[in-house]
Amino acid sequence: MDIGIIGGSGYTGGELMRLLSQHPEAKIKAVTSRTRKGQKISDTHAHLRKIIDLEFEELTPEEIASRCDIAFTAVPHGTAMHIVPALIDSGIKVIDMSADYRLRTDVFENTYKLKHTDPRDAVYGLPELHQDIPRQHFIANPGCYPTGASLAAAPFAGAGVIDRVVFDSKSGISGAGVSPSEVSHYPNMAENIQAYKLTTHRHRAEIVQELTRLDGSLNSISFTPHVIPSVRGILTTAHIFVKKELSREDVSAIYSDFYKDKPFIRLIESIPMLGNVRGSNFCDIGFEVENGSDRIVVISAIDNLVKGASGQAIQNMNLMFGLPETTGLWSPGFAP
Amino acid sequence: MDIGIIGGSGYTGGELMRLLSQHPEAKIKAVTSRTRKGQKISDTHAHLRKIIDLEFEELTPEEIASRCDIAFTAVPHGTAMHIVPALIDSGIKVIDMSADYRLRTDVFENTYKLKHTDPRDAVYGLPELHQDIPRQHFIANPGCYPTGASLAAAPFAGAGVIDRVVFDSKSGISGAGVSPSEVSHYPNMAENIQAYKLTTHRHRAEIVQELTRLDGSLNSISFTPHVIPSVRGILTTAHIFVKKELSREDVSAIYSDFYKDKPFIRLIESIPMLGNVRGSNFCDIGFEVENGSDRIVVISAIDNLVKGASGQAIQNMNLMFGLPETTGLWSPGFAP
Amino acid sequence: MDIGIIGGSGYTGGELMRLLSQHPEAKIKAVTSRTRKGQKISDTHAHLRKIIDLEFEELTPEEIASRCDIAFTAVPHGTAMHIVPALIDSGIKVIDMSADYRLRTDVFENTYKLKHTDPRDAVYGLPELHQDIPRQHFIANPGCYPTGASLAAAPFAGAGVIDRVVFDSKSGISGAGVSPSEVSHYPNMAENIQAYKLTTHRHRAEIVQELTRLDGSLNSISFTPHVIPSVRGILTTAHIFVKKELSREDVSAIYSDFYKDKPFIRLIESIPMLGNVRGSNFCDIGFEVENGSDRIVVISAIDNLVKGASGQAIQNMNLMFGLPETTGLWSPGFAP
Amino acid sequence: MDIGIIGGSGYTGGELMRLLSQHPEAKIKAVTSRTRKGQKISDTHAHLRKIIDLEFEELTPEEIASRCDIAFTAVPHGTAMHIVPALIDSGIKVIDMSADYRLRTDVFENTYKLKHTDPRDAVYGLPELHQDIPRQHFIANPGCYPTGASLAAAPFAGAGVIDRVVFDSKSGISGAGVSPSEVSHYPNMAENIQAYKLTTHRHRAEIVQELTRLDGSLNSISFTPHVIPSVRGILTTAHIFVKKELSREDVSAIYSDFYKDKPFIRLIESIPMLGNVRGSNFCDIGFEVENGSDRIVVISAIDNLVKGASGQAIQNMNLMFGLPETTGLWSPGFAP
Repeated sequence: MDIGIIGGSGYTGGELMRLLSQHPEAKIKAVTSRTRKGQKISDTHAHLRKIIDLEFEELTPEEIASRCDIAFTAVPHGTAMHIVPALIDSGIKVIDMSADYRLRTDVFENTYKLKHTDPRDAVYGLPELHQDIPRQHFIANPGCYPTGASLAAAPFAGAGVIDRVVFDSKSGISGAGVSPSEVSHYPNMAENIQAYKLTTHRHRAEIVQELTRLDGSLNSISFTPHVIPSVRGILTTAHIFVKKELSREDVSAIYSDFYKDKPFIRLIESIPMLGNVRGSNFCDIGFEVENGSDRIVVISAIDNLVKGASGQAIQNMNLMFGLPETTGLWSPGFAP
Repeated sequence: MDIGIIGGSGYTGGELMRLLSQHPEAKIKAVTSRTRKGQKISDTHAHLRKIIDLEFEELTPEEIASRCDIAFTAVPHGTAMHIVPALIDSGIKVIDMSADYRLRTDVFENTYKLKHTDPRDAVYGLPELHQDIPRQHFIANPGCYPTGASLAAAPFAGAGVIDRVVFDSKSGISGAGVSPSEVSHYPNMAENIQAYKLTTHRHRAEIVQELTRLDGSLNSISFTPHVIPSVRGILTTAHIFVKKELSREDVSAIYSDFYKDKPFIRLIESIPMLGNVRGSNFCDIGFEVENGSDRIVVISAIDNLVKGASGQAIQNMNLMFGLPETTGLWSPGFAP
Repeated sequence: MDIGIIGGSGYTGGELMRLLSQHPEAKIKAVTSRTRKGQKISDTHAHLRKIIDLEFEELTPEEIASRCDIAFTAVPHGTAMHIVPALIDSGIKVIDMSADYRLRTDVFENTYKLKHTDPRDAVYGLPELHQDIPRQHFIANPGCYPTGASLAAAPFAGAGVIDRVVFDSKSGISGAGVSPSEVSHYPNMAENIQAYKLTTHRHRAEIVQELTRLDGSLNSISFTPHVIPSVRGILTTAHIFVKKELSREDVSAIYSDFYKDKPFIRLIESIPMLGNVRGSNFCDIGFEVENGSDRIVVISAIDNLVKGASGQAIQNMNLMFGLPETTGLWSPGFAP
Repeated sequence: MDIGIIGGSGYTGGELMRLLSQHPEAKIKAVTSRTRKGQKISDTHAHLRKIIDLEFEELTPEEIASRCDIAFTAVPHGTAMHIVPALIDSGIKVIDMSADYRLRTDVFENTYKLKHTDPRDAVYGLPELHQDIPRQHFIANPGCYPTGASLAAAPFAGAGVIDRVVFDSKSGISGAGVSPSEVSHYPNMAENIQAYKLTTHRHRAEIVQELTRLDGSLNSISFTPHVIPSVRGILTTAHIFVKKELSREDVSAIYSDFYKDKPFIRLIESIPMLGNVRGSNFCDIGFEVENGSDRIVVISAIDNLVKGASGQAIQNMNLMFGLPETTGLWSPGFAP
């Protein structure tokens, strides 16, 4: 497979290249960046020196299509919708990493306060929840928080037992991107934890979409994100209030059934930690049933740049091309 | 005031000394440690070199009483109950920093799985919620998580509007104490966040006690703690589900009324951060009302070793001796 | 003493306010910031909320002089030289925190590649090395690296025994200031250490000035700085190659004599750590004599924002006004 | 190649398994741990769950030899010498990760204060400096600090131009191992940097051995290590004082010639950072020539667990078996 990456100067683009460099069936053919056109990619992503020996280019969708079998659009939301149509029309497969195609158009416009210029359907690329990815030419790759939250709660939604769920999520600061800001300024972030958008984060719409698809009656879904002094990773604490009492065994069975044959889900007896998934495409899930209460606490851990972005995109690519979904991704977390 | 500290080798003891060294009315007269008897205190607490020029001693309660007006017991739970009675009987004031006297005896025994050898009443030393501290000779100093959680939610409990509350708390690792452990091992803690005791942390009993004291009908109180890669601080995210719709103005009024004339509470427009309370006795509180929902998200930030332990103990001491509660504690956080 | 702070929006200004709020003889009367004029100081320095209840102002030197006995200029180098003359002429005392007056004019111009518009002499405000601060109206406050390096090596320079010295310094990132940058971006700084200006850092000129003042024959002084994933602190590793063999006892005697009656120097048996000086005005110094070699390794630890900037400025202020140098500064480090 | 790992419960063993799981020619057949015999490896190394599906065993050298073509001994120094002889005698290849065979026997005994029970010659497995690894059956894998330091300075030693060199090294705390200790306790390590063994670290003997092998006249080699608040990585700052003036071009030529065809050495124009080598087997090297001085500052960056331990061991294994040295190791660093 010959690969094009549209917008390769950020963390998501860099991570795509890191992972694709280890993929036995993939070859990166083009990486674009308007602002860094002509510069060596390894001047921006110095860890890729000697591994990726290409320059950033500025290319039309047609030029990309002439070289590549698939393009990843790693551009901001609002930008992707202006690039994706021509790529699709050029006949290659496309995985959009932005938020532009993840939501129903009306929900997107309402959530992002932006008119959509290319309202079209896309399959939501969370392979553990969507079976139809293998048939697709165009995939909307999920957001990082929604991946961690949806994977934690989907089995319960599928079982129809959720009364109310509160997602309290903690993300590494790499999720905020490559550009320095007040929040990412080391003296502000170190020895701190920053709650933000307490009730209004846009990723909630994706979580609602995925869980209500599984349980249409579910109507109390809360989400509050935080950034923690960590570069990578999202730990999601899902406080799930259930309609009927469930034993530890019941819950284990719900998860085991739901995630049977899902290679990247690891159900564990203990409590997941970011360190164990760092750099890998795994999602670790553990839980505890509160004694004498209607609450179950589920913890999921992912690497926001891998399972929460670039790794999941490659998992989708594998499926779109008929490869085993683990191809090039079957590597362990990076601990310590 | 002449001060004795029983158990001075840990973080709580060290922080008592740091703060008392700046207190205009206090003089440290005795610091005990059985294991470090005869050693210079500054060999253990090297930051106190030149400031505290005492040695650890091993002393009977009577010896402490002969030198001191008040003793702080900074010892583990289960130990305090064997030391406190003799100190009280010797006629000096006592502030117990352990968990031994914070709960009703039956609740304590059930929560800590330990027979109480000294069942007696103590006033719970959270000055913002308890008016009767000035008259007391014996105070049970609150736990760190309960301080952050109770201060966040008490005004709502006082107003009788809570239907359900989920406390998702994030603590610096200093709360786990001075002894190295798996969890505090740098490669395990750095770039991580560790959820633990998802449904069974013993501090929940204190939170329940304080909130149900204010609202006897409140019966859904959930608490899940985490440690974050930070030395100090507790950020509490309180997801409060209310019985009736409240506007931002309603909530502001509830807080302002409840915490009128409470010098250490800072109600802020933005979202509290650990960095702004680090090293100080302040509790910063901010909130957001979720649009079209029954949820209000409240964030409180304290320094677990100050407002969550030693600073609050000194605040109690001030009140017990008829001093302004801010004496020796009116110093800012330590940022950056 | 009524205090004015020129340029109060950065870390140095914030730290001056934090420390002065605990000073028994000082009262802050004016804090300027052109860009934040009219804003509450605690909107910028949120940790000072309830402690400093002033607004930033824009004031002429005359207005400052009419309200204040002393002004601290916490502005960038190149700016101070345009503010200091009028302040001095207005008759108040001045402590300049910038680099503008630390060096002989020709050395300054050569080092900073900048024409000096106000060539005048100033006493270099490192009180442990300069005895004449009490008589002064104008003090140039030292740089952070030079404070740590000069204090580590000055006793050897004073004894005339240095053949060659290599300062390998490690600073917390707060030294780079309050503005976000590539270097201070959390994902770049965390889990990293960044060497920079390997041979060309401008602070070397100050170190050379101070050490050659003590030993005119000393001509091999090397300095390489690094930033570490820490907010505060400078650890200086001084590799000192000596002209003649010295025993551990010799070295101890050299230090003890040189720093007799210097309250902020703590000579310690073990190896200094940033944690023990954090937030305090202490400089901890320890050393080891290499067996069978001409090398002695000295480690000094300071808080770059306190002894390396604002604390030292207040120490100078105390001396300029005839107070004990420890007034308002006799507080311990902040550990853990 | 069938692989045995003797002592697999520590960081070095875990890292061997992480890397070998991606190696196309290697298959792990046995991993020993006396204390964890019978336990699943992924209970200890949770990041390897689903990747390594073996249990720790307790095996004799003969049993290992019956299953494996090569054994890695990842055990403490002083232990390896009791295991290695039988492994070698059993006819398989052996790479010892401990310090036992790195030094000449007399130097070892003097440095480690330990009688050597198996004095035999081994090739020192630093492939960039030793050409004879392909012919060997037994390799002593270098220490982490010596790898970073020797690679930084070897080209100068080879050119015979060094007068004096000071290595000031900064290591991530994973170098101290998997067991919690005072130094690795998060509150002690965070926001800190800890210099230690200022003049007496045992790794100095390896550095001396390697550099004097290249330049027998070199006699001033100093080494001081530090641990920094980072999990992985060693940044070495080499202050090299040269006998004759060298231009930037001279130095570039020295490095380029010396490291021609060495795939894991990356000579870079800017200053190396740990983030760019994290998780990879690369050693990044950059330098600056001090103007008007005899000093050149060289910075090298490695991952202490990869190029400083397990990655280098696999590089040696590749060479011993006639594979390209990059086999299974040609993966980029892990940034951000």
